[in-house]
Amino acid sequence: MKLYDFPPAVNAQRVRMFIAEKGLDVPMVEVDVRAGALHEEPCRSMNPFAVVPFLELDDGTCIGESIAICRYLEELHPQDPLMGRDPKERAIVEMWNRRVELDGFMPALHALRNADPVYAGRVLPGTRNDLAQLPEIVGRGKDALAILFDRLDTRLAGSPFIAGERFSVADVTGWFTVQVASRIGVPIPDTCPNAERWRREVADRPSTRV
Amino acid sequence: MKLYDFPPAVNAQRVRMFIAEKGLDVPMVEVDVRAGALHEEPCRSMNPFAVVPFLELDDGTCIGESIAICRYLEELHPQDPLMGRDPKERAIVEMWNRRVELDGFMPALHALRNADPVYAGRVLPGTRNDLAQLPEIVGRGKDALAILFDRLDTRLAGSPFIAGERFSVADVTGWFTVQVASRIGVPIPDTCPNAERWRREVADRPSTRV
Repeated sequence: MKLYDFPPAVNAQRVRMFIAEKGLDVPMVEVDVRAGALHEEPCRSMNPFAVVPFLELDDGTCIGESIAICRYLEELHPQDPLMGRDPKERAIVEMWNRRVELDGFMPALHALRNADPVYAGRVLPGTRNDLAQLPEIVGRGKDALAILFDRLDTRLAGSPFIAGERFSVADVTGWFTVQVASRIGVPIPDTCPNAERWRREVADRPSTRV
Repeated sequence: MKLYDFPPAVNAQRVRMFIAEKGLDVPMVEVDVRAGALHEEPCRSMNPFAVVPFLELDDGTCIGESIAICRYLEELHPQDPLMGRDPKERAIVEMWNRRVELDGFMPALHALRNADPVYAGRVLPGTRNDLAQLPEIVGRGKDALAILFDRLDTRLAGSPFIAGERFSVADVTGWFTVQVASRIGVPIPDTCPNAERWRREVADRPSTRV
Protein backbone atom coordinates (compact mmCIF):
# COMPACT_ATOMS: atom_id res chain seq x y z
CA MET A 1 0.00 0.00 0.00
CA LYS A 2 0.94 3.65 -0.46
CA LEU A 3 -0.33 6.72 1.36
CA TYR A 4 -0.66 9.80 -0.84
CA ASP A 5 0.29 12.60 1.45
CA PHE A 6 0.81 16.38 1.55
CA PRO A 7 2.67 17.42 4.72
CA PRO A 8 0.91 20.79 5.31
CA ALA A 9 -2.62 19.34 4.99
CA VAL A 10 -4.23 18.89 8.38
CA ASN A 11 -6.07 15.69 7.43
CA ALA A 12 -2.79 14.23 6.17
CA GLN A 13 -1.19 15.17 9.50
CA ARG A 14 -4.07 13.51 11.30
CA VAL A 15 -3.46 10.19 9.54
CA ARG A 16 0.32 10.48 10.07
CA MET A 17 -0.22 11.00 13.80
CA PHE A 18 -2.50 7.94 13.89
CA ILE A 19 0.14 5.87 12.07
CA ALA A 20 2.87 7.09 14.44
CA GLU A 21 0.79 6.23 17.52
CA LYS A 22 0.31 2.71 16.18
CA GLY A 23 4.01 2.41 15.30
CA LEU A 24 3.29 1.44 11.68
CA ASP A 25 5.50 1.95 8.66
CA VAL A 26 3.40 2.98 5.66
CA PRO A 27 5.15 4.06 2.42
CA MET A 28 4.21 7.61 1.48
CA VAL A 29 4.07 9.52 -1.80
CA GLU A 30 3.94 13.31 -1.67
CA VAL A 31 1.28 14.95 -3.86
CA ASP A 32 1.92 18.50 -5.05
CA VAL A 33 -1.47 19.81 -3.93
CA ARG A 34 -0.66 23.50 -4.48
CA ALA A 35 0.28 22.80 -8.13
CA GLY A 36 -3.19 21.26 -8.63
CA ALA A 37 -2.06 17.61 -8.81
CA LEU A 38 -5.27 16.39 -7.12
CA HIS A 39 -7.30 17.64 -10.08
CA GLU A 40 -5.06 15.95 -12.66
CA GLU A 41 -4.34 12.34 -13.56
CA PRO A 42 -3.50 9.98 -11.99
CA CYS A 43 -4.88 11.48 -8.73
CA ARG A 44 -8.19 12.57 -10.22
CA SER A 45 -9.23 9.03 -11.14
CA MET A 46 -7.80 7.56 -7.95
CA ASN A 47 -9.71 9.94 -5.68
CA PRO A 48 -12.49 11.94 -7.38
CA PHE A 49 -13.08 13.88 -4.17
CA ALA A 50 -9.69 15.52 -4.76
CA VAL A 51 -8.48 15.63 -1.18
CA VAL A 52 -5.46 14.31 0.70
CA PRO A 53 -4.65 11.90 2.14
CA PHE A 54 -5.70 8.82 0.21
CA LEU A 55 -4.48 5.26 0.53
CA GLU A 56 -3.82 3.09 -2.52
CA LEU A 57 -4.03 -0.63 -1.80
CA ASP A 58 -1.97 -3.19 -3.69
CA ASP A 59 -5.00 -4.14 -5.83
CA GLY A 60 -5.44 -0.50 -6.90
CA THR A 61 -8.40 0.27 -4.61
CA CYS A 62 -8.17 3.81 -3.25
CA ILE A 63 -9.51 4.85 0.15
CA GLY A 64 -9.87 8.61 -0.06
CA GLU A 65 -10.90 9.68 3.41
CA SER A 66 -8.92 10.09 6.63
CA ILE A 67 -10.95 8.14 9.19
CA ALA A 68 -11.70 5.40 6.64
CA ILE A 69 -7.92 5.04 6.21
CA CYS A 70 -7.40 4.92 9.99
CA ARG A 71 -10.12 2.29 10.37
CA TYR A 72 -8.59 0.13 7.63
CA LEU A 73 -5.14 0.34 9.23
CA GLU A 74 -6.64 -0.45 12.64
CA GLU A 75 -8.33 -3.57 11.28
CA LEU A 76 -5.13 -4.75 9.59
CA HIS A 77 -3.02 -3.98 12.67
CA PRO A 78 -5.20 -4.42 15.74
CA GLN A 79 -2.28 -4.06 18.18
CA ASP A 80 -2.20 -0.80 20.19
CA PRO A 81 -5.84 -0.09 19.32
CA LEU A 82 -6.79 3.56 18.87
CA MET A 83 -10.45 2.89 18.06
CA GLY A 84 -11.44 0.71 21.03
CA ARG A 85 -10.91 -2.88 22.15
CA ASP A 86 -14.46 -4.24 22.08
CA PRO A 87 -17.84 -3.22 20.60
CA LYS A 88 -18.78 -0.97 23.53
CA GLU A 89 -15.40 0.76 23.71
CA ARG A 90 -15.40 1.17 19.92
CA ALA A 91 -18.83 2.82 20.11
CA ILE A 92 -17.62 5.21 22.83
CA VAL A 93 -14.48 6.13 20.86
CA GLU A 94 -16.56 6.60 17.71
CA MET A 95 -19.05 8.80 19.57
CA TRP A 96 -16.32 11.08 20.92
CA ASN A 97 -14.34 11.17 17.71
CA ARG A 98 -17.42 12.12 15.75
CA ARG A 99 -18.67 14.68 18.27
CA VAL A 100 -15.27 16.41 18.31
CA GLU A 101 -15.11 16.25 14.53
CA LEU A 102 -18.65 17.36 13.70
CA ASP A 103 -18.91 19.98 16.46
CA GLY A 104 -15.34 21.33 16.38
CA PHE A 105 -12.87 20.07 13.81
CA MET A 106 -15.11 20.58 10.76
CA PRO A 107 -16.46 24.00 11.83
CA ALA A 108 -12.85 25.08 12.56
CA LEU A 109 -11.62 23.81 9.18
CA HIS A 110 -14.44 25.58 7.33
CA ALA A 111 -13.66 28.74 9.29
CA LEU A 112 -9.97 28.51 8.35
CA ARG A 113 -10.81 27.97 4.67
CA ASN A 114 -13.06 31.04 4.77
CA ALA A 115 -10.47 33.15 6.62
CA ASP A 116 -7.02 32.41 5.17
CA PRO A 117 -6.32 33.93 1.73
CA VAL A 118 -4.36 30.80 0.76
CA TYR A 119 -7.73 29.01 0.38
CA ALA A 120 -9.25 31.60 -1.98
CA GLY A 121 -10.66 29.73 -4.98
CA ARG A 122 -10.85 26.43 -3.06
CA VAL A 123 -13.02 27.26 -0.10
CA LEU A 124 -14.76 23.87 -0.07
CA PRO A 125 -12.29 20.96 0.30
CA GLY A 126 -11.51 19.26 -3.01
CA THR A 127 -13.03 21.95 -5.22
CA ARG A 128 -11.76 24.74 -7.44
CA ASN A 129 -14.27 27.52 -8.07
CA ASP A 130 -15.03 31.15 -7.31
CA LEU A 131 -17.05 30.69 -4.12
CA ALA A 132 -16.51 33.67 -1.82
CA GLN A 133 -14.74 33.40 1.53
CA LEU A 134 -17.52 34.25 3.99
CA PRO A 135 -16.75 35.93 7.33
CA GLU A 136 -20.08 34.60 8.67
CA ILE A 137 -18.71 31.05 8.43
CA VAL A 138 -15.56 32.10 10.27
CA GLY A 139 -17.70 33.56 13.06
CA ARG A 140 -19.92 30.51 13.29
CA GLY A 141 -16.87 28.25 13.48
CA LYS A 142 -15.64 30.27 16.46
CA ASP A 143 -19.08 29.97 18.11
CA ALA A 144 -18.98 26.19 17.66
CA LEU A 145 -15.46 25.92 19.10
CA ALA A 146 -16.40 27.87 22.24
CA ILE A 147 -19.24 25.42 22.90
CA LEU A 148 -17.10 22.35 22.17
CA PHE A 149 -14.16 23.49 24.34
CA ASP A 150 -16.56 24.00 27.23
CA ARG A 151 -18.05 20.51 26.82
CA LEU A 152 -14.60 18.93 26.43
CA ASP A 153 -13.45 20.67 29.58
CA THR A 154 -16.30 19.07 31.53
CA ARG A 155 -15.45 15.68 30.05
CA LEU A 156 -11.71 16.02 30.71
CA ALA A 157 -12.29 16.98 34.36
CA GLY A 158 -13.09 13.31 34.98
CA SER A 159 -11.24 11.54 32.20
CA PRO A 160 -7.55 11.52 31.24
CA PHE A 161 -8.34 11.32 27.52
CA ILE A 162 -11.32 12.38 25.43
CA ALA A 163 -12.81 8.91 25.02
CA GLY A 164 -11.79 7.63 28.45
CA GLU A 165 -8.78 6.01 30.13
CA ARG A 166 -6.80 5.40 26.93
CA PHE A 167 -5.44 7.63 24.18
CA SER A 168 -7.57 7.17 21.05
CA VAL A 169 -8.34 8.55 17.61
CA ALA A 170 -10.67 11.03 19.36
CA ASP A 171 -7.57 12.64 20.91
CA VAL A 172 -5.95 12.82 17.47
CA THR A 173 -9.01 14.64 16.14
CA GLY A 174 -9.10 16.80 19.28
CA TRP A 175 -5.44 17.71 18.88
CA PHE A 176 -5.92 18.92 15.31
CA THR A 177 -9.11 20.74 16.30
CA VAL A 178 -6.97 22.73 18.74
CA GLN A 179 -4.32 23.31 16.06
CA VAL A 180 -6.81 24.62 13.51
CA ALA A 181 -8.64 26.65 16.17
CA SER A 182 -5.39 28.40 17.10
CA ARG A 183 -4.88 29.33 13.42
CA ILE A 184 -8.20 31.22 13.48
CA GLY A 185 -7.38 32.89 16.79
CA VAL A 186 -9.35 30.62 19.13
CA PRO A 187 -7.04 29.10 21.77
CA ILE A 188 -8.46 26.94 24.55
CA PRO A 189 -9.91 29.58 26.91
CA ASP A 190 -8.69 30.11 30.48
CA THR A 191 -12.09 28.89 31.66
CA CYS A 192 -11.19 25.38 30.41
CA PRO A 193 -8.21 24.23 32.56
CA ASN A 194 -8.98 20.53 32.09
CA ALA A 195 -8.92 20.86 28.31
CA GLU A 196 -5.63 22.77 28.60
CA ARG A 197 -4.15 20.02 30.86
CA TRP A 198 -5.12 17.47 28.20
CA ARG A 199 -3.64 19.65 25.42
CA ARG A 200 -0.29 19.91 27.22
CA GLU A 201 -0.15 16.15 27.74
CA VAL A 202 -0.95 15.41 24.10
CA ALA A 203 1.64 18.00 22.99
CA ASP A 204 4.31 15.93 24.76
CA ARG A 205 3.61 12.86 22.62
CA PRO A 206 6.24 12.22 19.90
CA SER A 207 3.38 11.53 17.43
CA THR A 208 2.58 15.27 17.34
CA ARG A 209 5.93 15.89 15.66
CA VAL A 210 5.64 13.59 12.63
CA MET B 1 -30.84 -1.53 25.54
CA LYS B 2 -33.14 1.40 24.78
CA LEU B 3 -32.98 3.91 21.94
CA TYR B 4 -34.00 7.43 22.94
CA ASP B 5 -35.77 8.71 19.87
CA PHE B 6 -37.66 11.73 18.52
CA PRO B 7 -39.55 10.86 15.33
CA PRO B 8 -39.16 14.21 13.49
CA ALA B 9 -35.37 14.39 14.04
CA VAL B 10 -33.48 13.45 10.91
CA ASN B 11 -30.63 11.71 12.77
CA ALA B 12 -33.20 9.66 14.69
CA GLN B 13 -34.82 8.72 11.35
CA ARG B 14 -31.41 7.76 10.03
CA VAL B 15 -30.83 5.27 12.86
CA ARG B 16 -34.40 3.92 12.55
CA MET B 17 -33.84 3.29 8.81
CA PHE B 18 -30.58 1.48 9.62
CA ILE B 19 -32.36 -0.68 12.22
CA ALA B 20 -35.18 -1.46 9.77
CA GLU B 21 -32.72 -2.46 7.03
CA LYS B 22 -31.05 -4.86 9.46
CA GLY B 23 -34.41 -6.19 10.66
CA LEU B 24 -33.63 -5.53 14.32
CA ASP B 25 -36.06 -4.89 17.13
CA VAL B 26 -34.72 -2.18 19.45
CA PRO B 27 -36.97 -0.82 22.24
CA MET B 28 -37.50 2.93 21.83
CA VAL B 29 -38.32 5.75 24.24
CA GLU B 30 -39.63 9.01 22.82
CA VAL B 31 -37.94 12.17 24.11
CA ASP B 32 -39.94 15.40 24.07
CA VAL B 33 -37.23 17.42 22.33
CA ARG B 34 -39.41 20.46 21.64
CA ALA B 35 -40.26 20.77 25.36
CA GLY B 36 -36.52 20.91 26.11
CA ALA B 37 -36.20 17.42 27.62
CA LEU B 38 -32.66 16.99 26.22
CA HIS B 39 -31.46 19.85 28.42
CA GLU B 40 -33.07 18.44 31.57
CA GLU B 41 -32.44 15.37 33.70
CA PRO B 42 -32.23 12.48 33.11
CA CYS B 43 -31.28 13.17 29.44
CA ARG B 44 -28.73 15.87 30.24
CA SER B 45 -26.50 13.53 32.23
CA MET B 46 -27.06 10.63 29.85
CA ASN B 47 -26.02 12.62 26.78
CA PRO B 48 -24.32 15.97 27.49
CA PHE B 49 -24.27 16.75 23.77
CA ALA B 50 -28.07 17.11 24.01
CA VAL B 51 -28.99 15.52 20.69
CA VAL B 52 -31.15 12.59 19.62
CA PRO B 53 -30.90 9.72 19.14
CA PHE B 54 -28.90 8.13 21.92
CA LEU B 55 -28.66 4.50 22.92
CA GLU B 56 -28.67 3.43 26.58
CA LEU B 57 -27.02 0.06 27.16
CA ASP B 58 -28.10 -2.27 29.96
CA ASP B 59 -25.08 -1.22 32.07
CA GLY B 60 -26.11 2.44 31.80
CA THR B 61 -23.51 3.44 29.18
CA CYS B 62 -24.96 5.95 26.70
CA ILE B 63 -23.89 6.16 23.05
CA GLY B 64 -24.99 9.61 21.94
CA GLU B 65 -24.20 9.74 18.26
CA SER B 66 -25.96 8.23 15.23
CA ILE B 67 -23.18 6.45 13.38
CA ALA B 68 -21.63 5.23 16.63
CA ILE B 69 -25.02 3.66 17.44
CA CYS B 70 -25.18 2.07 13.97
CA ARG B 71 -21.66 0.68 14.33
CA TYR B 72 -22.44 -0.80 17.73
CA LEU B 73 -25.61 -2.47 16.42
CA GLU B 74 -23.69 -3.76 13.38
CA GLU B 75 -21.05 -5.34 15.62
CA LEU B 76 -23.67 -6.98 17.82
CA HIS B 77 -25.71 -8.16 14.82
CA PRO B 78 -23.31 -8.78 11.94
CA GLN B 79 -25.98 -10.39 9.74
CA ASP B 80 -27.13 -8.31 6.73
CA PRO B 81 -24.09 -6.03 7.05
CA LEU B 82 -24.62 -2.37 6.16
CA MET B 83 -21.04 -1.32 6.90
CA GLY B 84 -19.11 -3.82 4.78
CA ARG B 85 -18.17 -7.51 5.02
CA ASP B 86 -14.36 -7.31 5.31
CA PRO B 87 -11.75 -4.65 6.11
CA LYS B 88 -11.50 -3.38 2.53
CA GLU B 89 -15.26 -3.21 2.01
CA ARG B 90 -15.68 -1.57 5.41
CA ALA B 91 -13.13 1.08 4.42
CA ILE B 92 -14.96 1.75 1.14
CA VAL B 93 -18.35 2.03 2.88
CA GLU B 94 -16.82 4.30 5.53
CA MET B 95 -15.21 6.49 2.86
CA TRP B 96 -18.50 6.97 0.99
CA ASN B 97 -20.59 7.40 4.13
CA ARG B 98 -18.23 10.06 5.40
CA ARG B 99 -17.86 11.86 2.09
CA VAL B 100 -21.64 12.06 1.70
CA GLU B 101 -21.99 13.16 5.30
CA LEU B 102 -19.20 15.74 5.45
CA ASP B 103 -19.74 17.13 1.95
CA GLY B 104 -23.57 16.98 1.80
CA PHE B 105 -25.53 15.86 4.82
CA MET B 106 -23.88 18.18 7.35
CA PRO B 107 -23.84 21.27 5.07
CA ALA B 108 -27.53 20.59 4.29
CA LEU B 109 -28.42 20.20 7.98
CA HIS B 110 -26.61 23.41 8.90
CA ALA B 111 -28.40 25.16 6.03
CA LEU B 112 -31.78 23.90 7.26
CA ARG B 113 -31.06 25.01 10.83
CA ASN B 114 -30.12 28.46 9.55
CA ALA B 115 -33.18 28.68 7.26
CA ASP B 116 -36.18 27.24 9.10
CA PRO B 117 -37.66 29.46 11.86
CA VAL B 118 -38.35 26.34 13.96
CA TYR B 119 -34.59 26.20 14.70
CA ALA B 120 -34.32 29.81 15.92
CA GLY B 121 -32.52 29.76 19.27
CA ARG B 122 -30.98 26.35 18.60
CA VAL B 123 -29.07 26.85 15.39
CA LEU B 124 -26.19 24.58 16.41
CA PRO B 125 -27.35 21.03 17.23
CA GLY B 126 -27.68 20.39 20.96
CA THR B 127 -27.43 24.04 22.00
CA ARG B 128 -29.81 26.72 23.20
CA ASN B 129 -28.58 30.27 22.69
CA ASP B 130 -29.18 33.42 20.68
CA LEU B 131 -26.91 32.70 17.71
CA ALA B 132 -28.39 34.27 14.57
CA GLN B 133 -29.68 32.23 11.64
CA LEU B 134 -27.26 33.18 8.85
CA PRO B 135 -28.37 33.19 5.20
CA GLU B 136 -24.71 32.83 4.15
CA ILE B 137 -24.65 29.34 5.71
CA VAL B 138 -27.83 28.44 3.83
CA GLY B 139 -26.22 29.54 0.58
CA ARG B 140 -22.98 27.69 1.25
CA GLY B 141 -24.96 24.52 2.05
CA LYS B 142 -26.65 24.78 -1.35
CA ASP B 143 -23.24 25.25 -3.03
CA ALA B 144 -21.93 22.11 -1.32
CA LEU B 145 -25.00 20.05 -2.31
CA ALA B 146 -24.64 21.01 -6.00
CA ILE B 147 -21.05 19.74 -5.98
CA LEU B 148 -21.93 16.55 -4.08
CA PHE B 149 -24.92 15.67 -6.31
CA ASP B 150 -22.69 16.03 -9.36
CA ARG B 151 -20.04 13.72 -7.87
CA LEU B 152 -22.65 11.20 -6.72
CA ASP B 153 -24.15 11.19 -10.21
CA THR B 154 -20.78 10.21 -11.69
CA ARG B 155 -20.40 7.47 -9.08
CA LEU B 156 -23.93 6.13 -9.55
CA ALA B 157 -23.51 5.93 -13.33
CA GLY B 158 -21.35 2.87 -12.71
CA SER B 159 -22.58 1.60 -9.36
CA PRO B 160 -26.06 0.52 -8.20
CA PHE B 161 -25.50 1.93 -4.71
CA ILE B 162 -23.29 4.68 -3.32
CA ALA B 163 -20.63 2.38 -1.85
CA GLY B 164 -20.87 -0.30 -4.57
CA GLU B 165 -22.94 -3.38 -5.36
CA ARG B 166 -24.73 -3.55 -2.02
CA PHE B 167 -27.02 -1.20 -0.11
CA SER B 168 -25.10 0.28 2.85
CA VAL B 169 -25.16 2.93 5.53
CA ALA B 170 -23.80 5.33 2.87
CA ASP B 171 -27.17 5.02 1.09
CA VAL B 172 -28.98 5.76 4.36
CA THR B 173 -26.91 8.93 4.76
CA GLY B 174 -27.43 9.75 1.07
CA TRP B 175 -31.20 9.28 1.39
CA PHE B 176 -31.43 11.74 4.30
CA THR B 177 -29.11 14.16 2.53
CA VAL B 178 -31.66 14.24 -0.31
CA GLN B 179 -34.52 14.66 2.20
CA VAL B 180 -32.87 17.60 3.98
CA ALA B 181 -31.77 19.12 0.66
CA SER B 182 -35.35 19.10 -0.59
CA ARG B 183 -36.43 20.96 2.57
CA ILE B 184 -34.08 23.82 1.65
CA GLY B 185 -35.25 23.83 -1.97
CA VAL B 186 -32.40 21.81 -3.52
CA PRO B 187 -33.77 18.72 -5.31
CA ILE B 188 -31.46 16.43 -7.28
CA PRO B 189 -30.97 18.45 -10.49
CA ASP B 190 -32.06 17.22 -13.95
CA THR B 191 -28.37 17.02 -14.87
CA CYS B 192 -27.95 14.10 -12.43
CA PRO B 193 -30.13 11.25 -13.83
CA ASN B 194 -28.07 8.52 -12.18
CA ALA B 195 -28.50 10.08 -8.76
CA GLU B 196 -32.23 10.39 -9.46
CA ARG B 197 -32.42 6.70 -10.52
CA TRP B 198 -30.75 5.77 -7.22
CA ARG B 199 -33.12 8.04 -5.26
CA ARG B 200 -36.21 6.39 -6.81
CA GLU B 201 -34.86 2.92 -6.00
CA VAL B 202 -34.10 3.83 -2.38
CA ALA B 203 -37.55 5.48 -2.06
CA ASP B 204 -39.12 2.08 -2.82
CA ARG B 205 -37.47 0.43 0.18
CA PRO B 206 -39.84 -0.18 3.14
CA SER B 207 -37.12 1.15 5.49
CA THR B 208 -37.78 4.71 4.24
CA ARG B 209 -41.23 4.54 5.85
CA VAL B 210 -40.28 3.72 9.44
